[in-house]
Amino acid sequence: MHFEGVPGHEFVGVALDGPLAGRRVVGEINAGCGECPACRGGDPRHCPTRTVLGILGRPGAFAEELSLPTGNLLPVPEGISDELAVFTEPLAAALAVLEAVPLTPSTRVGVAGDGRLGILVAHALASAGKEVVVFGRHPERQALLPRGCELVPGVLEADSPPRRPEWEVLVEATGSAAVLARALELVRPRGTLVLKTTVEEASTLPLAPLVVNEIRLVGSRCGRFAPALELLASDPPPLEKMIDHRFPLEEAPGALEVAGRQGCLKVLIEVSG
Amino acid sequence: MHFEGVPGHEFVGVALDGPLAGRRVVGEINAGCGECPACRGGDPRHCPTRTVLGILGRPGAFAEELSLPTGNLLPVPEGISDELAVFTEPLAAALAVLEAVPLTPSTRVGVAGDGRLGILVAHALASAGKEVVVFGRHPERQALLPRGCELVPGVLEADSPPRRPEWEVLVEATGSAAVLARALELVRPRGTLVLKTTVEEASTLPLAPLVVNEIRLVGSRCGRFAPALELLASDPPPLEKMIDHRFPLEEAPGALEVAGRQGCLKVLIEVSG
Repeated sequence: MHFEGVPGHEFVGVALDGPLAGRRVVGEINAGCGECPACRGGDPRHCPTRTVLGILGRPGAFAEELSLPTGNLLPVPEGISDELAVFTEPLAAALAVLEAVPLTPSTRVGVAGDGRLGILVAHALASAGKEVVVFGRHPERQALLPRGCELVPGVLEADSPPRRPEWEVLVEATGSAAVLARALELVRPRGTLVLKTTVEEASTLPLAPLVVNEIRLVGSRCGRFAPALELLASDPPPLEKMIDHRFPLEEAPGALEVAGRQGCLKVLIEVSG
Repeated sequence: MHFEGVPGHEFVGVALDGPLAGRRVVGEINAGCGECPACRGGDPRHCPTRTVLGILGRPGAFAEELSLPTGNLLPVPEGISDELAVFTEPLAAALAVLEAVPLTPSTRVGVAGDGRLGILVAHALASAGKEVVVFGRHPERQALLPRGCELVPGVLEADSPPRRPEWEVLVEATGSAAVLARALELVRPRGTLVLKTTVEEASTLPLAPLVVNEIRLVGSRCGRFAPALELLASDPPPLEKMIDHRFPLEEAPGALEVAGRQGCLKVLIEVSG
Protein backbone atom coordinates (compact mmCIF):
# COMPACT_ATOMS: atom_id res chain seq x y z
CA MET A 1 0.00 0.00 0.00
CA HIS A 2 3.07 2.29 -0.23
CA PHE A 3 2.57 3.04 3.46
CA GLU A 4 5.01 5.32 5.26
CA GLY A 5 4.85 5.55 9.03
CA VAL A 6 4.81 3.24 12.04
CA PRO A 7 4.17 -0.34 10.82
CA GLY A 8 2.64 -3.20 12.81
CA HIS A 9 -0.91 -4.54 12.82
CA GLU A 10 -0.76 -7.72 14.96
CA PHE A 11 -0.87 -6.75 18.61
CA VAL A 12 -2.24 -7.28 22.08
CA GLY A 13 -2.24 -4.40 24.56
CA VAL A 14 -4.12 -2.63 27.32
CA ALA A 15 -6.82 -0.07 26.52
CA LEU A 16 -5.91 3.35 27.90
CA ASP A 17 -9.41 4.83 27.71
CA GLY A 18 -12.90 4.13 26.41
CA PRO A 19 -15.33 1.49 27.66
CA LEU A 20 -12.59 -1.15 27.83
CA ALA A 21 -10.08 1.06 29.72
CA GLY A 22 -7.66 -1.04 31.74
CA ARG A 23 -8.55 -4.27 29.99
CA ARG A 24 -6.39 -6.37 27.73
CA VAL A 25 -7.55 -5.96 24.14
CA VAL A 26 -6.90 -6.81 20.54
CA GLY A 27 -8.21 -4.60 17.72
CA GLU A 28 -9.70 -5.05 14.26
CA ILE A 29 -7.30 -3.25 11.97
CA ASN A 30 -9.73 -1.72 9.44
CA ALA A 31 -11.33 1.55 10.56
CA GLY A 32 -14.19 2.55 8.24
CA CYS A 33 -15.98 5.87 7.73
CA GLY A 34 -19.19 4.54 9.28
CA GLU A 35 -21.33 6.13 6.56
CA CYS A 36 -20.76 4.30 3.28
CA PRO A 37 -22.76 1.24 2.12
CA ALA A 38 -19.92 -1.13 3.14
CA CYS A 39 -19.76 0.32 6.67
CA ARG A 40 -23.54 0.45 7.02
CA GLY A 41 -23.56 -3.19 5.92
CA GLY A 42 -21.23 -4.03 8.80
CA ASP A 43 -18.13 -4.45 6.67
CA PRO A 44 -15.65 -1.60 7.26
CA ARG A 45 -12.98 -3.91 5.84
CA HIS A 46 -14.20 -2.79 2.41
CA CYS A 47 -14.92 0.89 3.18
CA PRO A 48 -13.34 2.80 0.27
CA THR A 49 -12.01 5.51 2.62
CA ARG A 50 -10.93 3.17 5.43
CA THR A 51 -7.69 3.46 7.32
CA VAL A 52 -5.82 0.29 8.21
CA LEU A 53 -3.58 0.00 11.26
CA GLY A 54 0.05 0.20 10.21
CA ILE A 55 -0.89 -0.34 6.57
CA LEU A 56 -2.97 2.58 5.30
CA GLY A 57 -3.26 6.08 6.80
CA ARG A 58 -3.02 5.01 10.45
CA PRO A 59 0.15 4.58 12.58
CA GLY A 60 0.64 0.97 13.62
CA ALA A 61 1.50 -1.20 16.59
CA PHE A 62 5.31 -1.05 16.76
CA ALA A 63 4.99 1.76 19.32
CA GLU A 64 4.19 2.43 22.98
CA GLU A 65 0.68 3.57 22.05
CA LEU A 66 -1.64 3.28 19.11
CA SER A 67 -5.10 4.59 18.36
CA LEU A 68 -8.13 2.71 17.05
CA PRO A 69 -11.87 3.48 17.20
CA THR A 70 -13.47 2.06 20.35
CA GLY A 71 -15.69 -0.19 18.26
CA ASN A 72 -12.63 -1.94 16.80
CA LEU A 73 -11.46 -3.24 20.20
CA LEU A 74 -12.31 -6.65 21.64
CA PRO A 75 -11.45 -7.78 25.15
CA VAL A 76 -9.13 -10.77 25.36
CA PRO A 77 -10.51 -13.57 27.58
CA GLU A 78 -8.26 -14.34 30.56
CA GLY A 79 -7.39 -17.83 29.43
CA ILE A 80 -5.69 -16.55 26.28
CA SER A 81 -2.01 -15.72 26.80
CA ASP A 82 -0.38 -12.70 25.18
CA GLU A 83 1.63 -15.13 23.08
CA LEU A 84 -1.59 -16.55 21.62
CA ALA A 85 -3.50 -13.25 21.50
CA VAL A 86 -0.98 -11.73 19.05
CA PHE A 87 -2.14 -14.33 16.55
CA THR A 88 -5.75 -13.08 16.61
CA GLU A 89 -5.37 -10.98 13.46
CA PRO A 90 -3.66 -13.56 11.21
CA LEU A 91 -5.86 -16.35 12.59
CA ALA A 92 -8.93 -14.24 11.74
CA ALA A 93 -7.54 -13.88 8.22
CA ALA A 94 -7.07 -17.67 8.07
CA LEU A 95 -10.60 -18.31 9.35
CA ALA A 96 -11.94 -16.00 6.62
CA VAL A 97 -11.29 -18.91 4.24
CA LEU A 98 -14.28 -20.67 5.82
CA GLU A 99 -16.48 -17.73 4.75
CA ALA A 100 -14.91 -17.44 1.30
CA VAL A 101 -15.76 -20.94 0.16
CA PRO A 102 -18.57 -23.27 1.21
CA LEU A 103 -17.20 -26.54 2.61
CA THR A 104 -19.28 -29.67 2.87
CA PRO A 105 -18.18 -32.66 4.97
CA SER A 106 -16.91 -34.36 1.82
CA THR A 107 -15.00 -31.37 0.41
CA ARG A 108 -11.29 -32.19 0.07
CA VAL A 109 -9.16 -29.18 0.91
CA GLY A 110 -5.46 -28.58 0.34
CA VAL A 111 -3.22 -25.75 1.42
CA ALA A 112 -0.33 -24.49 -0.70
CA GLY A 113 2.44 -23.15 1.53
CA ASP A 114 3.81 -24.14 4.92
CA GLY A 115 4.72 -20.64 6.06
CA ARG A 116 2.97 -18.96 8.94
CA LEU A 117 -0.18 -18.20 6.95
CA GLY A 118 -0.36 -21.74 5.55
CA ILE A 119 -0.04 -23.20 9.05
CA LEU A 120 -2.75 -20.87 10.36
CA VAL A 121 -5.05 -21.79 7.46
CA ALA A 122 -4.51 -25.48 8.26
CA HIS A 123 -5.58 -24.81 11.86
CA ALA A 124 -8.57 -22.78 10.68
CA LEU A 125 -9.67 -25.66 8.44
CA ALA A 126 -9.02 -28.19 11.21
CA SER A 127 -11.36 -26.17 13.44
CA ALA A 128 -14.03 -26.88 10.81
CA GLY A 129 -13.31 -30.60 10.98
CA LYS A 130 -11.08 -30.81 7.92
CA GLU A 131 -7.96 -32.98 7.74
CA VAL A 132 -6.00 -31.08 5.15
CA VAL A 133 -2.93 -31.76 3.07
CA VAL A 134 -0.35 -28.96 3.16
CA PHE A 135 2.04 -28.63 0.23
CA GLY A 136 5.25 -27.10 1.52
CA ARG A 137 8.98 -27.36 1.67
CA HIS A 138 9.76 -27.66 5.38
CA PRO A 139 9.03 -31.25 6.51
CA GLU A 140 9.98 -30.27 10.08
CA ARG A 141 6.89 -28.05 10.24
CA GLN A 142 4.66 -31.10 10.42
CA ALA A 143 4.96 -30.56 14.19
CA LEU A 144 3.25 -27.18 13.85
CA LEU A 145 0.25 -28.56 11.99
CA PRO A 146 -2.97 -29.84 13.50
CA ARG A 147 -3.46 -33.54 14.11
CA GLY A 148 -4.58 -35.43 11.01
CA CYS A 149 -2.92 -32.89 8.75
CA GLU A 150 -0.26 -34.08 6.33
CA LEU A 151 2.69 -32.03 5.07
CA VAL A 152 3.73 -33.04 1.54
CA PRO A 153 6.94 -31.55 0.14
CA GLY A 154 8.10 -31.39 -3.47
CA VAL A 155 4.83 -30.52 -5.16
CA LEU A 156 4.83 -26.75 -5.65
CA GLU A 157 8.25 -26.41 -7.27
CA ALA A 158 8.12 -25.52 -10.96
CA ASP A 159 10.23 -28.58 -11.84
CA SER A 160 8.32 -31.08 -9.72
CA PRO A 161 6.50 -33.84 -11.62
CA PRO A 162 2.94 -33.14 -12.80
CA ARG A 163 0.15 -34.11 -10.39
CA ARG A 164 -3.45 -34.96 -11.07
CA PRO A 165 -5.75 -31.95 -10.80
CA GLU A 166 -7.64 -33.46 -7.91
CA TRP A 167 -8.24 -30.65 -5.43
CA GLU A 168 -11.77 -29.40 -5.03
CA VAL A 169 -10.55 -26.51 -2.86
CA LEU A 170 -6.96 -25.35 -2.62
CA VAL A 171 -5.91 -22.41 -0.45
CA GLU A 172 -2.89 -20.56 -1.79
CA ALA A 173 -0.82 -19.13 1.07
CA THR A 174 2.70 -19.23 -0.27
CA GLY A 175 3.40 -15.53 -0.49
CA SER A 176 4.83 -16.18 -3.91
CA ALA A 177 3.21 -15.19 -7.18
CA ALA A 178 5.42 -17.73 -8.94
CA VAL A 179 3.67 -20.65 -7.25
CA LEU A 180 0.20 -19.55 -8.36
CA ALA A 181 0.26 -21.15 -11.80
CA ARG A 182 1.45 -24.41 -10.25
CA ALA A 183 -1.27 -24.27 -7.60
CA LEU A 184 -3.84 -23.75 -10.35
CA GLU A 185 -2.70 -27.02 -11.96
CA LEU A 186 -3.61 -28.91 -8.78
CA VAL A 187 -7.24 -27.72 -8.75
CA ARG A 188 -9.77 -29.99 -10.36
CA PRO A 189 -12.29 -28.74 -12.95
CA ARG A 190 -14.98 -26.59 -11.28
CA GLY A 191 -12.80 -26.42 -8.17
CA THR A 192 -11.81 -23.34 -6.19
CA LEU A 193 -8.44 -21.70 -5.63
CA VAL A 194 -8.55 -19.34 -2.66
CA LEU A 195 -5.93 -16.58 -2.86
CA LYS A 196 -4.70 -15.47 0.55
CA THR A 197 -1.41 -14.00 -0.59
CA THR A 198 -1.31 -10.30 -1.34
CA VAL A 199 1.28 -10.18 -4.07
CA GLU A 200 2.57 -6.72 -4.79
CA GLU A 201 3.51 -6.92 -8.44
CA ALA A 202 1.21 -7.55 -11.38
CA SER A 203 1.33 -11.34 -11.34
CA THR A 204 1.16 -13.40 -14.46
CA LEU A 205 -1.46 -16.09 -14.30
CA PRO A 206 -2.41 -18.34 -17.21
CA LEU A 207 -6.11 -17.54 -17.46
CA ALA A 208 -7.01 -19.96 -20.25
CA PRO A 209 -6.99 -23.06 -17.96
CA LEU A 210 -9.09 -21.08 -15.52
CA VAL A 211 -11.80 -20.69 -18.17
CA VAL A 212 -11.43 -24.13 -19.78
CA ASN A 213 -11.58 -25.89 -16.41
CA GLU A 214 -14.15 -23.42 -15.03
CA ILE A 215 -12.14 -22.81 -11.88
CA ARG A 216 -13.08 -20.23 -9.27
CA LEU A 217 -10.41 -17.89 -7.98
CA VAL A 218 -11.49 -16.33 -4.70
CA GLY A 219 -9.54 -13.49 -3.14
CA SER A 220 -9.56 -13.48 0.66
CA ARG A 221 -7.93 -10.95 2.96
CA CYS A 222 -8.87 -9.96 6.51
CA GLY A 223 -11.28 -11.80 8.75
CA ARG A 224 -13.50 -11.00 11.71
CA PHE A 225 -11.75 -11.16 15.08
CA ALA A 226 -14.61 -12.67 17.10
CA PRO A 227 -14.37 -16.20 15.63
CA ALA A 228 -10.58 -16.12 16.07
CA LEU A 229 -10.89 -15.20 19.76
CA GLU A 230 -13.51 -17.90 20.22
CA LEU A 231 -11.19 -20.51 18.77
CA LEU A 232 -8.26 -19.28 20.89
CA ALA A 233 -10.44 -19.47 24.00
CA SER A 234 -12.07 -22.84 23.35
CA ASP A 235 -9.63 -25.04 21.48
CA PRO A 236 -6.38 -23.12 21.01
CA PRO A 237 -3.95 -24.38 18.37
CA PRO A 238 -0.34 -24.33 19.69
CA LEU A 239 0.49 -21.21 17.72
CA GLU A 240 3.01 -19.97 20.28
CA LYS A 241 5.37 -22.66 18.98
CA MET A 242 5.81 -20.46 15.92
CA ILE A 243 7.43 -17.65 17.95
CA ASP A 244 11.10 -17.70 17.03
CA HIS A 245 12.36 -14.56 18.78
CA ARG A 246 11.38 -11.73 21.10
CA PHE A 247 12.81 -8.22 21.03
CA PRO A 248 12.23 -5.07 23.08
CA LEU A 249 10.77 -2.15 21.12
CA GLU A 250 14.15 -0.36 21.11
CA GLU A 251 15.51 -3.22 19.00
CA ALA A 252 12.61 -3.19 16.51
CA PRO A 253 14.90 -2.64 13.47
CA GLY A 254 16.82 -5.80 14.40
CA ALA A 255 13.53 -7.62 14.97
CA LEU A 256 12.35 -6.74 11.47
CA GLU A 257 15.65 -7.92 10.03
CA VAL A 258 15.30 -11.27 11.81
CA ALA A 259 11.64 -11.57 10.82
CA GLY A 260 12.64 -11.19 7.19
CA ARG A 261 15.05 -14.12 7.28
CA GLN A 262 14.18 -17.32 5.44
CA GLY A 263 12.47 -19.77 7.78
CA CYS A 264 11.46 -17.27 10.48
CA LEU A 265 7.79 -17.64 11.39
CA LYS A 266 6.99 -15.08 14.09
CA VAL A 267 8.90 -12.43 16.02
CA LEU A 268 7.46 -10.57 18.99
CA ILE A 269 8.25 -6.96 19.82
CA GLU A 270 7.59 -6.21 23.48
CA VAL A 271 6.86 -2.86 25.01
CA SER A 272 7.47 -2.80 28.75
CA GLY A 273 4.35 -1.42 30.44
CA MET B 1 -5.94 -26.31 -28.06
CA HIS B 2 -3.41 -26.54 -30.95
CA PHE B 3 -6.06 -28.44 -32.91
CA GLU B 4 -5.31 -29.57 -36.44
CA GLY B 5 -8.14 -30.92 -38.56
CA VAL B 6 -11.64 -29.91 -39.64
CA PRO B 7 -12.79 -26.95 -37.46
CA GLY B 8 -16.36 -25.95 -36.65
CA HIS B 9 -18.44 -26.66 -33.54
CA GLU B 10 -21.63 -24.62 -34.02
CA PHE B 11 -23.98 -26.49 -36.31
CA VAL B 12 -27.44 -27.73 -37.10
CA GLY B 13 -27.88 -30.78 -39.31
CA VAL B 14 -29.83 -33.95 -39.98
CA ALA B 15 -28.97 -37.18 -38.13
CA LEU B 16 -27.94 -39.91 -40.59
CA ASP B 17 -28.41 -42.81 -38.21
CA GLY B 18 -29.13 -43.64 -34.58
CA PRO B 19 -32.40 -43.08 -32.70
CA LEU B 20 -32.79 -39.58 -34.19
CA ALA B 21 -32.13 -40.64 -37.81
CA GLY B 22 -33.78 -38.27 -40.25
CA ARG B 23 -34.44 -35.61 -37.66
CA ARG B 24 -32.94 -32.16 -37.43
CA VAL B 25 -30.43 -32.07 -34.57
CA VAL B 26 -27.85 -30.04 -32.75
CA GLY B 27 -25.09 -31.69 -30.72
CA GLU B 28 -23.25 -31.11 -27.47
CA ILE B 29 -19.63 -30.71 -28.50
CA ASN B 30 -17.88 -32.47 -25.60
CA ALA B 31 -17.72 -36.27 -25.90
CA GLY B 32 -16.55 -37.87 -22.65
CA CYS B 33 -15.17 -41.33 -21.92
CA GLY B 34 -18.28 -42.31 -19.96
CA GLU B 35 -16.21 -43.92 -17.21
CA CYS B 36 -14.41 -41.19 -15.24
CA PRO B 37 -15.86 -39.39 -12.19
CA ALA B 38 -16.73 -36.33 -14.30
CA CYS B 39 -18.64 -38.42 -16.85
CA ARG B 40 -20.32 -40.54 -14.20
CA GLY B 41 -21.35 -37.27 -12.53
CA GLY B 42 -23.08 -36.23 -15.76
CA ASP B 43 -20.43 -33.71 -16.79
CA PRO B 44 -18.48 -34.94 -19.83
CA ARG B 45 -17.52 -31.31 -20.41
CA HIS B 46 -14.77 -31.87 -17.83
CA CYS B 47 -13.80 -35.44 -18.73
CA PRO B 48 -9.97 -35.39 -18.80
CA THR B 49 -9.87 -37.59 -21.92
CA ARG B 50 -12.80 -35.93 -23.72
CA THR B 51 -12.81 -35.05 -27.38
CA VAL B 52 -14.39 -31.78 -28.45
CA LEU B 53 -15.99 -31.28 -31.84
CA GLY B 54 -13.65 -29.31 -34.08
CA ILE B 55 -11.50 -28.32 -31.11
CA LEU B 56 -9.85 -31.38 -29.59
CA GLY B 57 -9.35 -34.80 -31.17
CA ARG B 58 -12.58 -34.85 -33.19
CA PRO B 59 -13.19 -33.50 -36.73
CA GLY B 60 -15.63 -30.60 -36.72
CA ALA B 61 -18.68 -29.24 -38.48
CA PHE B 62 -17.25 -27.51 -41.54
CA ALA B 63 -17.89 -30.67 -43.56
CA GLU B 64 -20.65 -32.64 -45.26
CA GLU B 65 -20.76 -35.08 -42.34
CA LEU B 66 -19.56 -35.18 -38.77
CA SER B 67 -19.68 -37.80 -36.05
CA LEU B 68 -20.83 -37.43 -32.44
CA PRO B 69 -22.03 -40.00 -29.87
CA THR B 70 -25.79 -40.53 -30.07
CA GLY B 71 -26.20 -39.21 -26.54
CA ASN B 72 -24.78 -35.85 -27.56
CA LEU B 73 -27.57 -35.15 -30.06
CA LEU B 74 -30.73 -33.20 -29.28
CA PRO B 75 -33.67 -32.85 -31.68
CA VAL B 76 -34.44 -29.28 -32.73
CA PRO B 77 -38.10 -28.32 -32.20
CA GLU B 78 -39.89 -27.41 -35.42
CA GLY B 79 -40.45 -23.80 -34.46
CA ILE B 80 -36.74 -23.08 -34.32
CA SER B 81 -35.28 -22.05 -37.68
CA ASP B 82 -31.87 -23.24 -38.83
CA GLU B 83 -30.70 -19.65 -38.50
CA LEU B 84 -31.56 -19.71 -34.79
CA ALA B 85 -30.53 -23.31 -34.15
CA VAL B 86 -26.90 -22.60 -35.08
CA PHE B 87 -26.77 -20.36 -32.04
CA THR B 88 -27.59 -23.21 -29.65
CA GLU B 89 -23.97 -23.85 -28.70
CA PRO B 90 -22.88 -20.25 -28.00
CA LEU B 91 -26.22 -19.49 -26.34
CA ALA B 92 -25.71 -22.51 -24.08
CA ALA B 93 -22.27 -21.11 -23.20
CA ALA B 94 -23.89 -17.75 -22.43
CA LEU B 95 -26.60 -19.37 -20.29
CA ALA B 96 -23.85 -21.14 -18.32
CA VAL B 97 -23.26 -17.78 -16.63
CA LEU B 98 -26.53 -18.31 -14.77
CA GLU B 99 -25.08 -21.52 -13.27
CA ALA B 100 -21.66 -19.99 -12.57
CA VAL B 101 -22.89 -17.23 -10.28
CA PRO B 102 -25.98 -17.05 -8.10
CA LEU B 103 -28.19 -14.09 -9.04
CA THR B 104 -30.80 -12.65 -6.72
CA PRO B 105 -33.50 -10.25 -7.93
CA SER B 106 -31.43 -7.34 -6.62
CA THR B 107 -28.09 -8.42 -8.10
CA ARG B 108 -26.80 -5.80 -10.54
CA VAL B 109 -25.09 -7.40 -13.50
CA GLY B 110 -22.89 -5.85 -16.16
CA VAL B 111 -21.40 -7.33 -19.31
CA ALA B 112 -18.01 -6.30 -20.66
CA GLY B 113 -17.94 -6.61 -24.43
CA ASP B 114 -20.53 -6.07 -27.17
CA GLY B 115 -19.25 -8.77 -29.51
CA ARG B 116 -21.28 -11.86 -30.29
CA LEU B 117 -20.61 -13.50 -26.93
CA GLY B 118 -21.41 -10.32 -24.99
CA ILE B 119 -24.70 -9.95 -26.86
CA LEU B 120 -25.60 -13.60 -26.18
CA VAL B 121 -24.74 -13.19 -22.49
CA ALA B 122 -27.01 -10.14 -22.35
CA HIS B 123 -29.85 -12.23 -23.78
CA ALA B 124 -29.10 -15.07 -21.36
CA LEU B 125 -29.27 -12.65 -18.43
CA ALA B 126 -32.41 -11.05 -19.82
CA SER B 127 -34.03 -14.49 -19.88
CA ALA B 128 -33.42 -14.54 -16.11
CA GLY B 129 -35.15 -11.18 -15.73
CA LYS B 130 -32.03 -9.02 -15.62
CA GLU B 131 -31.78 -5.62 -17.31
CA VAL B 132 -28.07 -5.45 -17.83
CA VAL B 133 -25.60 -2.76 -18.82
CA VAL B 134 -23.24 -3.75 -21.62
CA PHE B 135 -19.90 -1.98 -21.86
CA GLY B 136 -18.83 -1.97 -25.48
CA ARG B 137 -17.65 0.09 -28.37
CA HIS B 138 -20.32 -0.30 -31.03
CA PRO B 139 -23.30 1.92 -30.12
CA GLU B 140 -25.18 0.60 -33.18
CA ARG B 141 -25.37 -2.83 -31.53
CA GLN B 142 -27.94 -1.52 -29.06
CA ALA B 143 -30.44 -2.87 -31.63
CA LEU B 144 -29.13 -6.40 -31.06
CA LEU B 145 -29.57 -6.27 -27.29
CA PRO B 146 -32.65 -7.28 -25.34
CA ARG B 147 -35.19 -4.68 -24.29
CA GLY B 148 -34.19 -2.81 -21.11
CA CYS B 149 -30.53 -3.43 -21.78
CA GLU B 150 -28.24 -0.42 -22.11
CA LEU B 151 -25.08 -0.25 -24.21
CA VAL B 152 -22.48 2.08 -22.69
CA PRO B 153 -19.39 2.90 -24.76
CA GLY B 154 -16.10 4.39 -23.60
CA VAL B 155 -15.62 2.50 -20.35
CA LEU B 156 -13.35 -0.44 -21.13
CA GLU B 157 -10.60 1.48 -22.91
CA ALA B 158 -7.37 1.71 -20.94
CA ASP B 159 -7.42 5.53 -21.17
CA SER B 160 -11.07 6.01 -20.23
CA PRO B 161 -11.73 7.87 -16.97
CA PRO B 162 -11.87 5.82 -13.76
CA ARG B 163 -15.29 4.52 -12.74
CA ARG B 164 -16.61 3.58 -9.35
CA PRO B 165 -16.16 -0.13 -8.58
CA GLU B 166 -19.90 -0.68 -8.38
CA TRP B 167 -20.61 -3.95 -10.12
CA GLU B 168 -21.66 -6.89 -8.00
CA VAL B 169 -21.38 -9.22 -10.99
CA LEU B 170 -19.57 -8.42 -14.21
CA VAL B 171 -19.33 -10.89 -17.09
CA GLU B 172 -16.19 -10.48 -19.16
CA ALA B 173 -16.84 -11.40 -22.79
CA THR B 174 -14.48 -9.15 -24.68
CA GLY B 175 -12.15 -11.77 -26.11
CA SER B 176 -9.30 -9.52 -25.07
CA ALA B 177 -6.91 -10.22 -22.23
CA ALA B 178 -6.00 -6.54 -22.19
CA VAL B 179 -9.47 -5.55 -21.01
CA LEU B 180 -9.42 -7.89 -18.01
CA ALA B 181 -7.57 -5.57 -15.64
CA ARG B 182 -9.95 -2.75 -16.53
CA ALA B 183 -12.98 -5.00 -16.00
CA LEU B 184 -11.60 -5.95 -12.60
CA GLU B 185 -11.60 -2.26 -11.62
CA LEU B 186 -15.35 -2.08 -12.24
CA VAL B 187 -16.17 -4.90 -9.80
CA ARG B 188 -17.08 -3.88 -6.29
CA PRO B 189 -15.43 -5.46 -3.22
CA ARG B 190 -16.65 -9.03 -2.72
CA GLY B 191 -18.12 -8.94 -6.22
CA THR B 192 -17.69 -11.51 -8.97
CA LEU B 193 -15.99 -11.29 -12.35
CA VAL B 194 -17.10 -14.11 -14.66
CA LEU B 195 -14.52 -14.96 -17.30
CA LYS B 196 -16.09 -16.20 -20.54
CA THR B 197 -13.17 -15.43 -22.81
CA THR B 198 -10.69 -18.18 -23.48
CA VAL B 199 -7.51 -16.19 -23.96
CA GLU B 200 -4.71 -18.17 -25.47
CA GLU B 201 -1.65 -16.50 -24.04
CA ALA B 202 -0.61 -16.30 -20.40
CA SER B 203 -2.51 -13.17 -19.46
CA THR B 204 -1.24 -10.69 -16.95
CA LEU B 205 -3.75 -9.87 -14.29
CA PRO B 206 -3.02 -7.70 -11.25
CA LEU B 207 -3.87 -10.16 -8.50
CA ALA B 208 -3.29 -7.85 -5.52
CA PRO B 209 -6.62 -5.97 -6.00
CA LEU B 210 -8.32 -9.34 -6.33
CA VAL B 211 -7.12 -10.28 -2.84
CA VAL B 212 -7.49 -6.84 -1.24
CA ASN B 213 -11.04 -6.43 -2.56
CA GLU B 214 -11.84 -10.13 -2.08
CA ILE B 215 -13.17 -10.49 -5.59
CA ARG B 216 -14.23 -13.80 -7.11
CA LEU B 217 -13.00 -14.72 -10.55
CA VAL B 218 -15.15 -17.47 -12.05
CA GLY B 219 -14.13 -19.23 -15.24
CA SER B 220 -17.05 -20.32 -17.41
CA ARG B 221 -16.89 -22.21 -20.68
CA CYS B 222 -19.49 -24.50 -22.28
CA GLY B 223 -23.08 -24.85 -21.21
CA ARG B 224 -25.81 -27.46 -21.45
CA PHE B 225 -27.80 -27.40 -24.69
CA ALA B 226 -31.22 -28.18 -23.23
CA PRO B 227 -31.81 -24.76 -21.59
CA ALA B 228 -30.62 -23.05 -24.79
CA LEU B 229 -33.09 -24.99 -26.93
CA GLU B 230 -35.85 -24.25 -24.43
CA LEU B 231 -35.16 -20.52 -24.68
CA LEU B 232 -35.00 -20.65 -28.48
CA ALA B 233 -38.33 -22.47 -28.54
CA SER B 234 -40.20 -20.36 -25.98
CA ASP B 235 -38.91 -16.80 -26.18
CA PRO B 236 -36.31 -16.58 -28.93
CA PRO B 237 -34.00 -13.59 -28.93
CA PRO B 238 -33.55 -12.15 -32.46
CA LEU B 239 -30.13 -13.74 -32.83
CA GLU B 240 -30.46 -14.22 -36.59
CA LYS B 241 -29.91 -10.45 -36.90
CA MET B 242 -26.28 -11.17 -36.09
CA ILE B 243 -25.76 -13.21 -39.27
CA ASP B 244 -23.64 -11.06 -41.56
CA HIS B 245 -22.88 -13.48 -44.39
CA ARG B 246 -23.61 -16.94 -45.78
CA PHE B 247 -21.19 -19.06 -47.80
CA PRO B 248 -21.39 -22.51 -49.42
CA LEU B 249 -18.98 -25.08 -47.98
CA GLU B 250 -16.73 -24.80 -51.05
CA GLU B 251 -16.05 -21.19 -50.08
CA ALA B 252 -15.26 -21.98 -46.43
CA PRO B 253 -11.76 -20.42 -46.57
CA GLY B 254 -13.29 -17.13 -47.69
CA ALA B 255 -15.97 -17.47 -44.98
CA LEU B 256 -13.29 -17.80 -42.33
CA GLU B 257 -11.49 -14.76 -43.69
CA VAL B 258 -14.70 -12.70 -43.52
CA ALA B 259 -15.54 -14.05 -40.05
CA GLY B 260 -12.16 -12.81 -38.81
CA ARG B 261 -12.80 -9.22 -39.91
CA GLN B 262 -13.37 -6.54 -37.32
CA GLY B 263 -17.09 -6.08 -36.70
CA CYS B 264 -18.25 -9.38 -38.16
CA LEU B 265 -20.59 -11.20 -35.77
CA LYS B 266 -21.67 -14.43 -37.42
CA VAL B 267 -21.04 -16.18 -40.73
CA LEU B 268 -22.94 -19.27 -41.85
CA ILE B 269 -21.43 -22.04 -43.95
CA GLU B 270 -24.09 -24.02 -45.77
CA VAL B 271 -23.86 -27.57 -47.03
CA SER B 272 -26.42 -28.39 -49.69
CA GLY B 273 -28.22 -31.53 -48.58
